[in-house]
Amino acid sequence: MQIAVLGTGEVGRRLASRLVQVGHRVVLGSRTADNAEAHTWAGENHSAHGTFAEAATFGEVVVNATGGLVTAAVLEAAGAANLAGKVVIDVSNALDFSRGFPPDAVTFDGLGVAETIQRDFPQARVVKTLNTMNNKVMVRPDLVPGDHVVFLSGDDADAKAVTAGLLRDMGWRDPQIQDLGGISTSRATEQFVIMWVHMNGVLGGGSGMWNIGVLRGEDTPFV
Amino acid sequence: MQIAVLGTGEVGRRLASRLVQVGHRVVLGSRTADNAEAHTWAGENHSAHGTFAEAATFGEVVVNATGGLVTAAVLEAAGAANLAGKVVIDVSNALDFSRGFPPDAVTFDGLGVAETIQRDFPQARVVKTLNTMNNKVMVRPDLVPGDHVVFLSGDDADAKAVTAGLLRDMGWRDPQIQDLGGISTSRATEQFVIMWVHMNGVLGGGSGMWNIGVLRGEDTPFV
Repeated sequence: MQIAVLGTGEVGRRLASRLVQVGHRVVLGSRTADNAEAHTWAGENHSAHGTFAEAATFGEVVVNATGGLVTAAVLEAAGAANLAGKVVIDVSNALDFSRGFPPDAVTFDGLGVAETIQRDFPQARVVKTLNTMNNKVMVRPDLVPGDHVVFLSGDDADAKAVTAGLLRDMGWRDPQIQDLGGISTSRATEQFVIMWVHMNGVLGGGSGMWNIGVLRGEDTPFV
Repeated sequence: MQIAVLGTGEVGRRLASRLVQVGHRVVLGSRTADNAEAHTWAGENHSAHGTFAEAATFGEVVVNATGGLVTAAVLEAAGAANLAGKVVIDVSNALDFSRGFPPDAVTFDGLGVAETIQRDFPQARVVKTLNTMNNKVMVRPDLVPGDHVVFLSGDDADAKAVTAGLLRDMGWRDPQIQDLGGISTSRATEQFVIMWVHMNGVLGGGSGMWNIGVLRGEDTPFV
């Protein structure tokens, strides 16, 4: 598949490298065409880089790996026409560190990042995923044992199926991929990130190499 | 131990019954002394009931099992003097259903319920716990297999130790009891509840008989 990854930070480069590794063609997008990190990444990965708009034009799927606080500006630069009809996978979180650590999860008129993308780019088929774990676990879920989980939120079933396919390419197994429902459910996963930050300090030893799982019991009559 | 459980809803009665079952003396507190559900509960459990203030006076430990939206009024009725120096275990969530289902998690000037309790009753030793799961799982964690988790948040280490003891009495095992840190971390678990609601519909089949666990991987050099 042709995939645009917008954002040259750790998350964007990690995702882009892994998608290349598993056989996709990736253009890494950044604000300006002469981005040094994107240039280095492209050389190391035998891939291309370009502006947000150039990357989005290339992509059949567009991955937003920019910070949620700048996502609106990034996607405007990418161009609504270059997103129309496409699967837009949003892996971002909008974290506000202005009150220190831990950060707050920002909402926009009560909506999360992915919801605002879907509202502002109604022709895009937005799917939220991969925003509830460390970026190493995102792309190498096999590094954490067991049925830890990744969530999908989105209004377009086909777009979620395409996204699930990319997750499988990176090593996620079907029992791990949990469809939470429509795009509004992404607000819940975006709010979860603050708990992730706390849990990471205590449970992950700060390493990020952990994830949540779901343990089920019998719904027996209660005594 | 002498324990006050404030709130006669399903959560309060479930907790109160279980605490009696494992050997504690419990007074179930409600707004008025003639509460019919509290009266029935007391008869069935060979225990007493009373007003919020009467219950709080009795309790060495006071459990807030009222809804987070009314907690401030409930604890004011219980009386600051009756909470001073005591372990106050807050299991509540503040859910706003005014925009329909799923609800929003309410904050108060940016603070969660447990944070506002600690702020408004500075002599109480507030611990947040048990607010991230169904009330059956709260009191019978053995009904869900494996190392699913319960969180503790609070500023007072001794109060958290007392709370952990009560959790153990109900069947929680040490690897399941995760101390997240100070009371401010409870805001994260209160925000998690919205994700719980979504997950419960999809993953728990609506039964509530599930919980999250933490799966850990090795922090190996990443390739």
